[in-house]
Amino acid sequence: MKKSTLPMFLAAALAAYVIPASSQVRPETQMKQRQAAMTLQGKYFYPIRAQAQGKVPYDAAIVARNVAYLDQLARMPWDGFTPATKDIKSRATPAVFTDTAKFKQAQDHFQAEVTKLVEVTRKGDEASIKNQILAVDKTCNSCHDDFRERN
Amino acid sequence: MKKSTLPMFLAAALAAYVIPASSQVRPETQMKQRQAAMTLQGKYFYPIRAQAQGKVPYDAAIVARNVAYLDQLARMPWDGFTPATKDIKSRATPAVFTDTAKFKQAQDHFQAEVTKLVEVTRKGDEASIKNQILAVDKTCNSCHDDFRERN
Repeated sequence: MKKSTLPMFLAAALAAYVIPASSQVRPETQMKQRQAAMTLQGKYFYPIRAQAQGKVPYDAAIVARNVAYLDQLARMPWDGFTPATKDIKSRATPAVFTDTAKFKQAQDHFQAEVTKLVEVTRKGDEASIKNQILAVDKTCNSCHDDFRERN
Repeated sequence: MKKSTLPMFLAAALAAYVIPASSQVRPETQMKQRQAAMTLQGKYFYPIRAQAQGKVPYDAAIVARNVAYLDQLARMPWDGFTPATKDIKSRATPAVFTDTAKFKQAQDHFQAEVTKLVEVTRKGDEASIKNQILAVDKTCNSCHDDFRERN
């Protein structure tokens, strides 16, 4: 078997080499990165939610900018919820790691509503935009109900 | 003077009402938000820098996605470096709050190089993309030299 040892070793080394960088990221860093994405979703969502709720005046320029950011930020947290992070203390509920299908469904629902927000924002009708901002808010809350521990 | 008191009060109340949401954000939250943007810049930049450095194989799909994210993330940290945050412990050097013109110049330089990266990535020439990734890396480091404390 000696003859095959070297090729096998090389194959293993090569496999390690081509693993995407993300899977080499420490679990603590993965958690920090996913929390960072959530923090920035808050930064750009809360001000436009306040506009949709009539708490601050509507500002189309802020909505357009924030929605463009949210379109990207909505995609960023999910790959940080890997099994490797399941024992690190965070507000992720155990369901994140056990009910992965439902968690994925909640992510997809959120992203679909954000995509819809991007579309209505492009069309520019204030009432529709405000309604859709509130629809996005519902998907945030509904996902948090199941997958984020209460403070 | 009693007659003018009410209008002045109303004007002040209105001014408070129309202040952008960002200026109502607690300094600690502003710091957390700017650090979140830096964390995500790292998440999406380090893997493509490793590709540019030849440490991992070049992957055009990952580069395209990460560069699109970085285009947005490059704009997100700067409004978090407000004077209100200057006494909160962080890695921001005092120069962030004293040499604001130079700090702004460093931000603009970084964003210009990221914009150039977006353009070369669109054109698709691997060697140019790799060079431009390394050019962006230089602007990160050069800004950190002046405006981020060493660990």
